[in-house]
Amino acid sequence: MNTRLYNARILTMGKNRPIFRGEVWVKDDRILCVLENGEKDCRQAEEPEGIEWDSEIDCGDNLIMPGFKNAHTHSAMTLLRSYADDVPLQRWLNDKIFPVEKKLTGEDIYHLTRLAVLEYLTSGITAVFDMYLMPEKTAQACIDTGMRCVLVSGLNNFTSSVEQVEEEYLKWNGKHELISYRMGFHAEYTCSKDLLYRLAQLSHKYHAPVYTHLSETKREVEECMARCGVPPAVYLDSMGLFEFGGGGYHCVHMTPADMDVFRRRRLCVVTCPASNMKLASGIAPAAKFERMKIPVAIGTDGAASNNCLDMFREMFLVSGLSKLKENDASSLNAMSVLNMATVNGAFAMGLADADVLAEGKYADLILIDLKQPNMQPLNSITGNIVYSGSKSNVKMTMIGGKILYSNGEFHVGDSPESIYRECEKIVRRVTGEGHINSVLQ
Amino acid sequence: MNTRLYNARILTMGKNRPIFRGEVWVKDDRILCVLENGEKDCRQAEEPEGIEWDSEIDCGDNLIMPGFKNAHTHSAMTLLRSYADDVPLQRWLNDKIFPVEKKLTGEDIYHLTRLAVLEYLTSGITAVFDMYLMPEKTAQACIDTGMRCVLVSGLNNFTSSVEQVEEEYLKWNGKHELISYRMGFHAEYTCSKDLLYRLAQLSHKYHAPVYTHLSETKREVEECMARCGVPPAVYLDSMGLFEFGGGGYHCVHMTPADMDVFRRRRLCVVTCPASNMKLASGIAPAAKFERMKIPVAIGTDGAASNNCLDMFREMFLVSGLSKLKENDASSLNAMSVLNMATVNGAFAMGLADADVLAEGKYADLILIDLKQPNMQPLNSITGNIVYSGSKSNVKMTMIGGKILYSNGEFHVGDSPESIYRECEKIVRRVTGEGHINSVLQ
Repeated sequence: MNTRLYNARILTMGKNRPIFRGEVWVKDDRILCVLENGEKDCRQAEEPEGIEWDSEIDCGDNLIMPGFKNAHTHSAMTLLRSYADDVPLQRWLNDKIFPVEKKLTGEDIYHLTRLAVLEYLTSGITAVFDMYLMPEKTAQACIDTGMRCVLVSGLNNFTSSVEQVEEEYLKWNGKHELISYRMGFHAEYTCSKDLLYRLAQLSHKYHAPVYTHLSETKREVEECMARCGVPPAVYLDSMGLFEFGGGGYHCVHMTPADMDVFRRRRLCVVTCPASNMKLASGIAPAAKFERMKIPVAIGTDGAASNNCLDMFREMFLVSGLSKLKENDASSLNAMSVLNMATVNGAFAMGLADADVLAEGKYADLILIDLKQPNMQPLNSITGNIVYSGSKSNVKMTMIGGKILYSNGEFHVGDSPESIYRECEKIVRRVTGEGHINSVLQ
Repeated sequence: MNTRLYNARILTMGKNRPIFRGEVWVKDDRILCVLENGEKDCRQAEEPEGIEWDSEIDCGDNLIMPGFKNAHTHSAMTLLRSYADDVPLQRWLNDKIFPVEKKLTGEDIYHLTRLAVLEYLTSGITAVFDMYLMPEKTAQACIDTGMRCVLVSGLNNFTSSVEQVEEEYLKWNGKHELISYRMGFHAEYTCSKDLLYRLAQLSHKYHAPVYTHLSETKREVEECMARCGVPPAVYLDSMGLFEFGGGGYHCVHMTPADMDVFRRRRLCVVTCPASNMKLASGIAPAAKFERMKIPVAIGTDGAASNNCLDMFREMFLVSGLSKLKENDASSLNAMSVLNMATVNGAFAMGLADADVLAEGKYADLILIDLKQPNMQPLNSITGNIVYSGSKSNVKMTMIGGKILYSNGEFHVGDSPESIYRECEKIVRRVTGEGHINSVLQ
């Protein structure tokens, strides 16, 4: 598919490049060129193979920008959206989440992930960093719907092994253009020392970065201190896990020593503000990370804790919570947050070709409707997106050159209704009759 | 207009009434009946004057509920959306907001309010509690677009007088069914003691409740303590301002003595979490107010500080911030928050006829689309609305029996585009050339 997107405002997210008016040309799954009106006539640009447009889209002076990168999620947890609200994290995990997750089949995970993909598309998310059980099912759901996905293993003492991680690592890197795979483990507190040591060896073998849930709750950090004598990032680094980079999801309760590990190892923080609010875990010091030059990306976490997969809400929260935490209304401005949600996300996920809009990059982009009341007037478009934007402003989501969502319609193979039906069946099976009676709450 | 809404799930927000399936019948601007399927056949219900339906709408098993009450806003401040982001409150007011506001004409306020109304409708807001300059212009904009509006005077030392408040009070109560008027003043720190005393006398004359911005920032409270020896609510109550009830907007930094005034006088708190985050003012103790039986309603504040007029964001924040503040994930559950956004809002605004869905109440209601990915599966509909909902779920907004917004289309007289154009002209005039150059940021 070759698509010409014209009559657009364009925010490339390239360094120091302001918004301009122009066109984006897409050839197959890549951007052929991003052109500014007037400066250069698109018609005169080089057309190496004599492009014939399959589609020419008038963007109506709305904004094209890179799609958002959801840098931490558990897609299939759509199952448990609003299933266990208003419960603290440890009780939530042990009493509510784990018992139900045990009943999930691979097919369940496939359908539930497809539901998540629908939601990602409505929010302009063009790539996800997904840690969940049976990652091959997540991969298949993403391939079938067209979503770009970086799988990350959730290695732990109970449900997987280092051998399995190696096998998946080799299988999923290079197998499909939409899918890649990163090494990871669930968390310090669910992995034995031996398991972590063996994962570190594996990461050394492939020079691979490693990712994990990290310092999400105060209790987690206190227990690690009691057990290991040092805070989590220091402990994990001492095992050699971060020698080739990687990052931490959440990073709410980081000690100065943990932050120093992140700075030295050039690790990424993936902040998940809505989930951390909803589970009362705390506020991650995102602005402080930025000042320390630690890259911060943004994730929604799973729908069981958030409960939605909406990068607009996360973006507002990253900035708003930072302002609260630092008692400073100038903390983390809109452009910093947009950078986290796009460029830093791509960096954290290893998607070097999906960060900005430029020649040769993946055509992973979105069209933001500026003609809705929450985007008017245009005092600042970037300010409007971060502080006032909503998924209702996403007019179109394109991944790898394919339009998967436009004007409220999905183009992902099956209809939303059929995906909803599959998921509802799963909910009824795994949460049981008692639950069904309370469905109408 | 007589409208029958059938094949719906219904959340009346009446006490202890769960969601059920049924119909809502609307006759002119009121609800004729709310009927549960099966229990009673709507067709057999009493039809006093032999209703002929102008419209029968299949709700597709989606949810009808009362519209949200935005209990604190400055509608016309849409002008300054994303105009002065990332600036602390006092500098924001003095350097950015006040100088521009001085240039506003009545016609400007009219157009800018109409822009706000469009946004309210997309977010399912069916009534607003609006404090702004030239309230008659706000009233006219609301009448022309069909929005229900409770005006509240923003009396202060500079732009209005007690005489004017009395005149407007008498003029706007009873003049138009969509409009009512409440006495209010801008804030303790912008009103002389004499002015407040005279407003108190006026409130005694009409037995009228009084509303004000209150304890929004720490500095405001400290300065009041220094000046008056007591915190703001205590000071204002000592002037007799709250003898007939009323309430405070924001209420972030309340001392126990202030809370006691609220409890004794049965005053309402209107919390504005997004605005308080964005201006780094703090987190209002909403759960504590609830435990003290102080009614809490929710407001967006104006678009200059928020920057959007979206009750879904506010609802998530009220709960999420409360969980953070109390370090307790069970703090303020979804139903409590929905109650604040509907029933308590109506109570705070004096809209006794617009609180729940029941016979004889205003037909101020919304249709929530449950067939979107962020609303699936239906583990808990109320949980989904508060924790996962977005304005993209608002399928229809009806005020006083009139459908003003449905499936993305507005029915408010003028087209959105013409309203945007008027507002853009105003922006260019009042913010000047220097600003225009930075429009594309």
